[in-house]
Amino acid sequence: MPAASDPRDRPIAVFDSGVGGLTVLHELLVHLPQEDFVYLGDTARFPYGQRSTAELEGFALQIAEELAHRRAKLLVVACNTMTAAALPALQRRMLETTLGVDVIGVVRPEALHAVAATRNGRIGLLATPATVASGAYADAVAAVDSHVDLVAVPCPDLAPLIQDPPGGAAGELFTPRLQDAVRAYTAPLVEARADTVILGCTHYPLVRPMLQRMLGRDVTIVTSGAALARQVEHALGSRDLAARRSTGEGTYSFLCTGDVEAFRALGTRFLQMPLTEVEHVALGPTTTTEVHPAWPRP
Amino acid sequence: MPAASDPRDRPIAVFDSGVGGLTVLHELLVHLPQEDFVYLGDTARFPYGQRSTAELEGFALQIAEELAHRRAKLLVVACNTMTAAALPALQRRMLETTLGVDVIGVVRPEALHAVAATRNGRIGLLATPATVASGAYADAVAAVDSHVDLVAVPCPDLAPLIQDPPGGAAGELFTPRLQDAVRAYTAPLVEARADTVILGCTHYPLVRPMLQRMLGRDVTIVTSGAALARQVEHALGSRDLAARRSTGEGTYSFLCTGDVEAFRALGTRFLQMPLTEVEHVALGPTTTTEVHPAWPRP
Repeated sequence: MPAASDPRDRPIAVFDSGVGGLTVLHELLVHLPQEDFVYLGDTARFPYGQRSTAELEGFALQIAEELAHRRAKLLVVACNTMTAAALPALQRRMLETTLGVDVIGVVRPEALHAVAATRNGRIGLLATPATVASGAYADAVAAVDSHVDLVAVPCPDLAPLIQDPPGGAAGELFTPRLQDAVRAYTAPLVEARADTVILGCTHYPLVRPMLQRMLGRDVTIVTSGAALARQVEHALGSRDLAARRSTGEGTYSFLCTGDVEAFRALGTRFLQMPLTEVEHVALGPTTTTEVHPAWPRP
Repeated sequence: MPAASDPRDRPIAVFDSGVGGLTVLHELLVHLPQEDFVYLGDTARFPYGQRSTAELEGFALQIAEELAHRRAKLLVVACNTMTAAALPALQRRMLETTLGVDVIGVVRPEALHAVAATRNGRIGLLATPATVASGAYADAVAAVDSHVDLVAVPCPDLAPLIQDPPGGAAGELFTPRLQDAVRAYTAPLVEARADTVILGCTHYPLVRPMLQRMLGRDVTIVTSGAALARQVEHALGSRDLAARRSTGEGTYSFLCTGDVEAFRALGTRFLQMPLTEVEHVALGPTTTTEVHPAWPRP
């Protein structure tokens, strides 16, 4: 553990399997400008989609411990797959151990905001097939209000089209092919007259205007970042952990487990702010439960 | 004049000296998805900054006539310089002639929205030195409410940094240098405690999240596009010119007076949607008042 300092001066840590979570960090930087942030992209092990739950729990605990040792005052899991697989275990472990750091994940904040926003009780969900299949959003929405209908549309090629646009150049993101994909995925939600749509993948905010045009301007779009920002603020407030500076900007920095330059090149487009320092961090291939036997087992 | 058809089925025309007005078109595409649009970028004569008022009036009338002949049902001037220099003359001419097309410009809609949004009566303005010096926003704000303070900050290098980021690649827009410029330009507005800030240049919405972070999340940002979209909708409604389709998307296409490929390459970043058809259109160097002597002189 690092030497004690005022916990309010510590950074908020945000982590994800890659660069997608940078859209969440983007919202946090806009909504909580006074806070310091550190972001970790586990790009060496990206993507998480085909990993087992046990493996993802191991990754999550390993990353969380790394960030807690870097004096994070709060952990934000900006990854749908890891949230679905590992959030409860992660929360339990981080609060049980001497690290004592709280963990907030995606999914539940979006579900809450969507239920609060809908007027006709029809909520749409756009997400990867794995996220839709996990049922995480359906469970979260039902837990908030069992009378709301969730229309879930799995979007197999939307995140890949956003992350790796044909041709590769950032300027070529907005292609007719992408537009056709967005049109096809939004059509069932328009048909179902959903008045609120959850973007259940951190990549999708990059095409938000296109989505808004296809869905119609009266449809409320709920992103992970905006929903999380509110919950992060509540968490900091209730624990007296909000940054002490009341004006001016905090700092932000980056860690990644894979290639630093690739992260920087891809990440700027997702963050929409300069990616300055990016530090490489090595996380072993083994799971945290093996590396840290001292941690209490559930 | 083209053969008569239902005027509601005609496109809305949007024009600008270059690609900046595409951020206005972007907002119109999101807010009015059922409408058809045609955009004209006068890139061959870009920039307009150093042109005389008489010259700009000539350009405006020439472009307006071209677009009216392409059956536009409404003209939107998405250019601060041309709005300041030529809007009244343009409106008078287009309504006096047989073309009978209404013209809407920037500046006034933003002033109206900013005055409606401010709670402390302190409105900030970020704009090019020429726009600030023209006093157009100060006049427009004072015309709506003479008790509001306008703090105007001229931003000499902000539009150039956005249009031509160092290195040129679209992904390199969000540089530390740009961030430093944004920080410097927003500082006087933070100092003045402006609670509402007008982005008085069509380029600035591309760095809106950065501006919001620097200004603070409680500051209302007013963009030309969002403010104009409302007024365009009112204009269509009051003249019974709204598109007849109630669902689905309209079309949009592009004209430019300069190099088509350069327009397309730069434009996608500003539109954030695919730039499909771009047609070259030749507009002569002479002013419309000479080309069309039949038009009544004011």
